[in-house]
Amino acid sequence: MGNPQLVHFTGGETGPWRVLRMRAIAGPPLTDVAYVSTSETQGAWTLRGVVSHVRYVERAEGAALRERQEGLGRPAATRAALIPIKKADAWWDLAQDERRAIFEERSRHIASTLRFLPAIARRLHHARDLGEPFDFLTWFEFAPEHEALFDELLHMLRATEEWRYVTREIEIHLASADSGGAGIER
Amino acid sequence: MGNPQLVHFTGGETGPWRVLRMRAIAGPPLTDVAYVSTSETQGAWTLRGVVSHVRYVERAEGAALRERQEGLGRPAATRAALIPIKKADAWWDLAQDERRAIFEERSRHIASTLRFLPAIARRLHHARDLGEPFDFLTWFEFAPEHEALFDELLHMLRATEEWRYVTREIEIHLASADSGGAGIER
Repeated sequence: MGNPQLVHFTGGETGPWRVLRMRAIAGPPLTDVAYVSTSETQGAWTLRGVVSHVRYVERAEGAALRERQEGLGRPAATRAALIPIKKADAWWDLAQDERRAIFEERSRHIASTLRFLPAIARRLHHARDLGEPFDFLTWFEFAPEHEALFDELLHMLRATEEWRYVTREIEIHLASADSGGAGIER
Repeated sequence: MGNPQLVHFTGGETGPWRVLRMRAIAGPPLTDVAYVSTSETQGAWTLRGVVSHVRYVERAEGAALRERQEGLGRPAATRAALIPIKKADAWWDLAQDERRAIFEERSRHIASTLRFLPAIARRLHHARDLGEPFDFLTWFEFAPEHEALFDELLHMLRATEEWRYVTREIEIHLASADSGGAGIER
């Protein structure tokens, strides 16, 4: 049966997003491709994830996020990044309160990313329960003038205690293949 | 690719578990079947779920559960129940702390089920992110002499605030088709 929350990212020879550069930050790389498509098409690889309910965000934090964030597909957001991430078994073996403590109380994942809103729009796709090679597919969209800000976001996240559990991470920088924003609206 | 955490439940004409009775508690029923198999075979229906990390259990609670619970597949546990459950969108739209508050602080899901251990062994399968018709497939195994205790567990859960969010629930009672416990070890 169909899953309306399921999103595919296919790396191949064609697609609405042109690859500017890709590299493995941790763990084995993905095959180099020229384009990324946000649908299930032929390609060198296809990654799948679902847009699901929040796992750590609390009520007040959710309100703060909703107030500041903007949606995907903004015309000015002609740059994007796909960052697939896998975390260690040691992370998944933790209890909910232990994961939450590392995620927010100590790594400040939510609070410290607020200042990157609304410049950087993002969507998280959960992949672990699908048996995928990555646990998460993170997707970001921003205008070209915010590239330095986006790099700052990545540096900040990678310095956190939470990131010590990341065992595989690929960074794929993308530019809209046409002049407008390609978006990934479903 | 394969998903080692993925479990199938197929209702059909054959299988290690014979259906004693099945009924819809809420929402539309599943087609009546004579047997349930815990593998992906031909049948009237197949439900899928993954054995995943805990979503609400905190560290101390996890320790209390691990201390008391027993595994699936015990020879004496010749009775089982498969209870697929779907929760309302209103549940999934809640923030993590709101869901946890209903789940444990007010519904006492973890604390109040401790007294049913180790008599009743159980395993939770997450299905929502797979695009399945149910959000969870709950599986219980117990010895025939604990049937009344199991019924008590169901009554208790259904009286909680958490259960107000359940929009579909099927109760399928099963007996091991041979004399020993059929188990669902993977």
